[in-house]
Amino acid sequence: MSVSGAGEGLPAPGPVTFGDRLAAALAARESQIVLGIDPDPARLWPSPLGRTSEARAALAQALADAHESARILAAAPGDAQAAHPTDGGRTTAPGGAPELDPPAIEAAAAVLGHSLALIDAAAPACVAAKPQLACFERLGFAGALALEAVCARARAAGLLVLADGKRGDVPVTAAAYAQALTGNTPSPFGPIPGLGVDALTANPLLGRDALAPLVEGARAAGAGVFALVRTSNPGAADLMDLPLATGEPLWERLAALVAELGRPGRAGLDDVGAVTGATAPEHLERMRELMPRTPFLLPGVGAQGGDVATLAPAFAPGRAAGLVTASRSIAHAHEQAGGDPAQAARSEAERLRELAWGLA
Amino acid sequence: MSVSGAGEGLPAPGPVTFGDRLAAALAARESQIVLGIDPDPARLWPSPLGRTSEARAALAQALADAHESARILAAAPGDAQAAHPTDGGRTTAPGGAPELDPPAIEAAAAVLGHSLALIDAAAPACVAAKPQLACFERLGFAGALALEAVCARARAAGLLVLADGKRGDVPVTAAAYAQALTGNTPSPFGPIPGLGVDALTANPLLGRDALAPLVEGARAAGAGVFALVRTSNPGAADLMDLPLATGEPLWERLAALVAELGRPGRAGLDDVGAVTGATAPEHLERMRELMPRTPFLLPGVGAQGGDVATLAPAFAPGRAAGLVTASRSIAHAHEQAGGDPAQAARSEAERLRELAWGLA
Repeated sequence: MSVSGAGEGLPAPGPVTFGDRLAAALAARESQIVLGIDPDPARLWPSPLGRTSEARAALAQALADAHESARILAAAPGDAQAAHPTDGGRTTAPGGAPELDPPAIEAAAAVLGHSLALIDAAAPACVAAKPQLACFERLGFAGALALEAVCARARAAGLLVLADGKRGDVPVTAAAYAQALTGNTPSPFGPIPGLGVDALTANPLLGRDALAPLVEGARAAGAGVFALVRTSNPGAADLMDLPLATGEPLWERLAALVAELGRPGRAGLDDVGAVTGATAPEHLERMRELMPRTPFLLPGVGAQGGDVATLAPAFAPGRAAGLVTASRSIAHAHEQAGGDPAQAARSEAERLRELAWGLA
Repeated sequence: MSVSGAGEGLPAPGPVTFGDRLAAALAARESQIVLGIDPDPARLWPSPLGRTSEARAALAQALADAHESARILAAAPGDAQAAHPTDGGRTTAPGGAPELDPPAIEAAAAVLGHSLALIDAAAPACVAAKPQLACFERLGFAGALALEAVCARARAAGLLVLADGKRGDVPVTAAAYAQALTGNTPSPFGPIPGLGVDALTANPLLGRDALAPLVEGARAAGAGVFALVRTSNPGAADLMDLPLATGEPLWERLAALVAELGRPGRAGLDDVGAVTGATAPEHLERMRELMPRTPFLLPGVGAQGGDVATLAPAFAPGRAAGLVTASRSIAHAHEQAGGDPAQAARSEAERLRELAWGLA
């Protein structure tokens, strides 16, 4: 681990920081690859869980039961009333909540099976898993349960878990997102545990006071935050590249905010990272100048058109300072390479691992 | 409904637009008040569902069953294997997924009961409900189910539903959020229905191509998008107020993007709205200039310190052009006013309704 500098010679901080945990994980796994988990129900690996599994049938039944109970509760104002009450002058339809469509349960189970198989296949070549929250949210509450199981399996496979949701809101709501992702929520029934991820992605548009609860919540759990600095989509230029009155583009101000919010651990790596689009490699040197101790999360390799060999400047302070994300290029490797999806995914993840490891 | 202008004289568009639906809802309910639903498990109304309800017990049991089934699936690589397999050289712990904490189920049921009672109490004075997604996400998958039931109850009470999640991501992921919130997700099992809300809040930092899937997805469903232009937190000044090289502050560029993306309906109101912080009323006139047909979502009244009387410029083109959000000031009205929480909430919502209606 060659990241060093600011942290050396300082007294050891009390809790272990995300920067230190990241550096240790990287050294142990010899990989900078972050496995993106963006399951598309229309492009899943062939029936990885099987539709005959007992646990799978039990899951479907329990989800349907839960939905029906919630439907009855939502339909009945007050406590323990009939399932189909009328409701004064309001327009409460009988039943209130809609029926749970069987496709939602089938698809959530299939997405869960696919995601678990993908983790099993690619984890040995990776340092972290990055579930894309949108891909689970679109499956409703069954998808939220699948997400919890995916995070648990990734942890069990020795991976750090990065929740990719690009969250950001006013301070009181940002604090709720921190509780959801890295903390817990106090309640009269006891604390409600959050998803317990090791890091999350955040949108910094709302400013310092809106990022602070995410950073502080993560820090208290030894977790980290990756804030958007410059994303990899073409439209990122619309706003993030806008020149400010002071001369620099907006993304340089975002970079300064990230550098200011981060705190280094003993390994010299900050606990606030930056999402830095790999499709704009000409920016990477300037970003490193502005954020000397910041872990970069580099998307855009593979499906988004980036090229891993252009990323070398990101790794200048050490390998742990540059994480390389790949999602569809791993999960869909068999569509190019042919053969077994799991084998193809493992090979592609290993290929990317070697490529990136060789650059630093 | 006095909003008019650009839409007049045009042929009727095929599907009904969000702007038209908003105008119609406003006229029917004579209210501009958006009921924010931001439940805090530590500040709920006293046991609105009761802990003895049969449906509530069934819900808790089904949620626990679903979690246990998912735990078994997550622990078992492959199909229908034993619940506690070993897993080659990896560190899969027996059980894989964590146990579901009873507090999560208790709290989700209590939050659901509180939210349903809040809707029942305040809906008659409101035009829309705005669930804060973070407050449900922090309750895990049980919270996601509660959110679905809350949306269903709000619809049944005649309210539009605005999902407040400030979503924003690269185009492929933005499309997944659109599926989650206003569309559906194709799958081999059939389309998976999304949350089916009438509008959502979005973060525009990633630019036009990242907003487009949210706008197009919403438009196809007759729904709308409210993009952040200037939020109400103090830190909003850090970035949104930054002067650009071209002279104007960044938020004016965000406003221009909103105006460009919106399409007017017959009532003259666009289907892309703007989140415009009520704590900066001096900006409202300029915002209206830049976004003449845009519905404004005005947060900051009540708990965030805004004052409804300063909002008049927002309503200049007509009442439907200015929606007034209130969350904690309604849900916690009894903490100031005393008495029954539902009565206090209803009175406060009605007070705000009359105040705003009188300004236009």
